[in-house]
Amino acid sequence: MKIAIIGGTGKEGKGLAYRWAKAGHKVTIGSRQFEKAQHIAEELNMEKQGIKPVSGLQNSDAAKQAELVVVTVPFAAHVATLETIKDAVQGKIVVDVTVPLVPPKVSTVHIPAAGSAAMEAQSVLGEDTRVVSAFQNVSYEKLMDDNAQISDVLVCGNDQAAKNLVLQLIDDAGMKGFDAGALQNSIVSEGMTSVLININKKFGVHSAGIKIIGLEE
Amino acid sequence: MKIAIIGGTGKEGKGLAYRWAKAGHKVTIGSRQFEKAQHIAEELNMEKQGIKPVSGLQNSDAAKQAELVVVTVPFAAHVATLETIKDAVQGKIVVDVTVPLVPPKVSTVHIPAAGSAAMEAQSVLGEDTRVVSAFQNVSYEKLMDDNAQISDVLVCGNDQAAKNLVLQLIDDAGMKGFDAGALQNSIVSEGMTSVLININKKFGVHSAGIKIIGLEE
Repeated sequence: MKIAIIGGTGKEGKGLAYRWAKAGHKVTIGSRQFEKAQHIAEELNMEKQGIKPVSGLQNSDAAKQAELVVVTVPFAAHVATLETIKDAVQGKIVVDVTVPLVPPKVSTVHIPAAGSAAMEAQSVLGEDTRVVSAFQNVSYEKLMDDNAQISDVLVCGNDQAAKNLVLQLIDDAGMKGFDAGALQNSIVSEGMTSVLININKKFGVHSAGIKIIGLEE
Repeated sequence: MKIAIIGGTGKEGKGLAYRWAKAGHKVTIGSRQFEKAQHIAEELNMEKQGIKPVSGLQNSDAAKQAELVVVTVPFAAHVATLETIKDAVQGKIVVDVTVPLVPPKVSTVHIPAAGSAAMEAQSVLGEDTRVVSAFQNVSYEKLMDDNAQISDVLVCGNDQAAKNLVLQLIDDAGMKGFDAGALQNSIVSEGMTSVLININKKFGVHSAGIKIIGLEE
């Protein structure tokens, strides 16, 4: 599958690019600057052996050529970035990884006016784009480490077919995904990042995560 | 410790009463009706051997004689119940277990105007009451079963000493609690209940929960 990772020069985006390239997907890293996107793509291709080569493009070009578009940008750049890819993603699935952190108080949950970052994305991109939220609680370190015990992934969205496709991509990336309900529920996975930041601080670790339990009775 | 469980005739309240009575705490179940509170307390004392006897009182009387007050009521009764115990809980710790579910759409997260049910409680009870939120993701069935693998508990609140006491009570109840940050973060644990309802439906189970992972590096 042709996947674009907008803001893919950030750590989280690079980690997801690695996991999907390893699974054989055609991944393009997007950045505001073409050169930076190319640099990170080349770095990843050098760093990890045997992955399908990752390429780099400017954000809107990356979005244009992709079948599915993943957005991993800081919250401060969220709306502005969505505006630059809006035309390119009409009719497509957009996976929003954005966490509405407001520095310096990143350990406190911030609820955007739209109800969540993902609802904000849906509002900016319009109803012809199927927004799905996922991956907010997955840490970069664990994505780059093939043997890590990695967080489960909560998947929120209003389109079941789009969610099912994202659940398949989570499986491809070696993680366990759960359909967490409507897009409105995304504030839980987004806010969980602030909760995990509290736990990281307390335990002196960097990548606490969650596992869903109680699936057998 | 003298613990009152307001709305303790509900399943969740009864389950918590059992766990703490088993640990030797002096638990009083509260209800709007004195007779109902007494009935559930006697039922629990008969059902479970060797626990410290649980008593039953009308909600405001239960709150009055307790050192710590736990609120487990349906969201529709949240504010009205808090008003009836407001005078009795001044200067005390109130543990709010309330999940802001709005039937019939219980699988979709509802964000109360105050930002969360716990923030609503803080607003109703005033600043002289230390509100802590916890236990929203713990199922009744698992509380009543000594051998169950039970959900971890996220603890939110603005008073560190109050949170530490609640963390100790979670430990006493045989669960693992985590300081999840400020009271504002409570929307995550409250909303997680709707996420778990989605997962329960999908897997045909009744008590999916969460575990925090990644605490060692």
